[in-house]
Amino acid sequence: MEAFRVLPGVGPKTAQRMAMHLLERDRPGGQKLASTIQQAIDEVGYCRRCRTLTEADICALCESPRRHDQLLCVVESPADQLAIEEAGGFQGRYFVLHGHLSPLDGIGPDAIGLDVLEARVAEGQISEVVLATNPTVEGEATAHYIAALLAEHGVTLSRLAYGVPMGGELEYVDGGTLSRAFNGRQPFSSE
Amino acid sequence: MEAFRVLPGVGPKTAQRMAMHLLERDRPGGQKLASTIQQAIDEVGYCRRCRTLTEADICALCESPRRHDQLLCVVESPADQLAIEEAGGFQGRYFVLHGHLSPLDGIGPDAIGLDVLEARVAEGQISEVVLATNPTVEGEATAHYIAALLAEHGVTLSRLAYGVPMGGELEYVDGGTLSRAFNGRQPFSSE
Repeated sequence: MEAFRVLPGVGPKTAQRMAMHLLERDRPGGQKLASTIQQAIDEVGYCRRCRTLTEADICALCESPRRHDQLLCVVESPADQLAIEEAGGFQGRYFVLHGHLSPLDGIGPDAIGLDVLEARVAEGQISEVVLATNPTVEGEATAHYIAALLAEHGVTLSRLAYGVPMGGELEYVDGGTLSRAFNGRQPFSSE
Repeated sequence: MEAFRVLPGVGPKTAQRMAMHLLERDRPGGQKLASTIQQAIDEVGYCRRCRTLTEADICALCESPRRHDQLLCVVESPADQLAIEEAGGFQGRYFVLHGHLSPLDGIGPDAIGLDVLEARVAEGQISEVVLATNPTVEGEATAHYIAALLAEHGVTLSRLAYGVPMGGELEYVDGGTLSRAFNGRQPFSSE
């Protein structure tokens, strides 16, 4: 029971239910869970090129000959990378920071791999870096830091558009977002 | 109790609690509520110019000499207008549709005041119309219809930017929004 509590969102009651369930009703399932976790921990590491999670030395996405080398998307986490991949449309490569700058917690540029990122950009193949860090204060600060770092390398820098999310109601959109959506308004035609 | 159920979000239990509270503990409050509702229903009508709710013939915002006449923002409801006003930054005038086109429900162009809107634009003072209908399928369809309607009047048409809302996490943003935020990405610099 104690061990299950390392999982996010699992408190004492849930941990107890999980443990009891495996012991009383599904011992083979428990066996499989244990060995899969062990295997994942042994085998999943970080891609040497983009730092995402992978079982290989270089991940499939970095290896793929069908992705564009000129476009690099910088994200905070493998989950963000997955969200962008699922949304579709992006054809470039990724770079995963595993966090954002947070000097108070001792997380500096090297801890989020900015040295690796700079070396990657210095190779000269990349023409545009999309800074897709989270639209939070920390993500924004990290984007600014990276922009300053890469400024001398002559790449185009861009950031995801801020605006109203699709399917929402204006009435419930926060003021800051609404005012950015207003300032960033786009030409519109009936076609 | 029956009467309270006309309010949105009030079911039988809440209606009972409200009625009992007024009768047992706050009769003067109930008196005031009744007379305020009566007064509001008698006196609040629609602005002749922008169709928002107002006690006057023409609302304060349409009368104000400090707003720009060249910029007109079209919204679906007075609540949306309020949200944009609270966000600040917009200095133009408004036009309130009170809904969106919905042919299946018999809501056509005239029911949302598009004849009034077209006449307003035909006056010639307006140079840009911001179509701030909701980022929903219906709101988008209504924006397209209005764009077609106003095309011949030679005004600039624009629409609020779609994108990621401020303060969110990319991981939880839906795919459609993420892909629009990606396509609408903006140049970024470290300043």
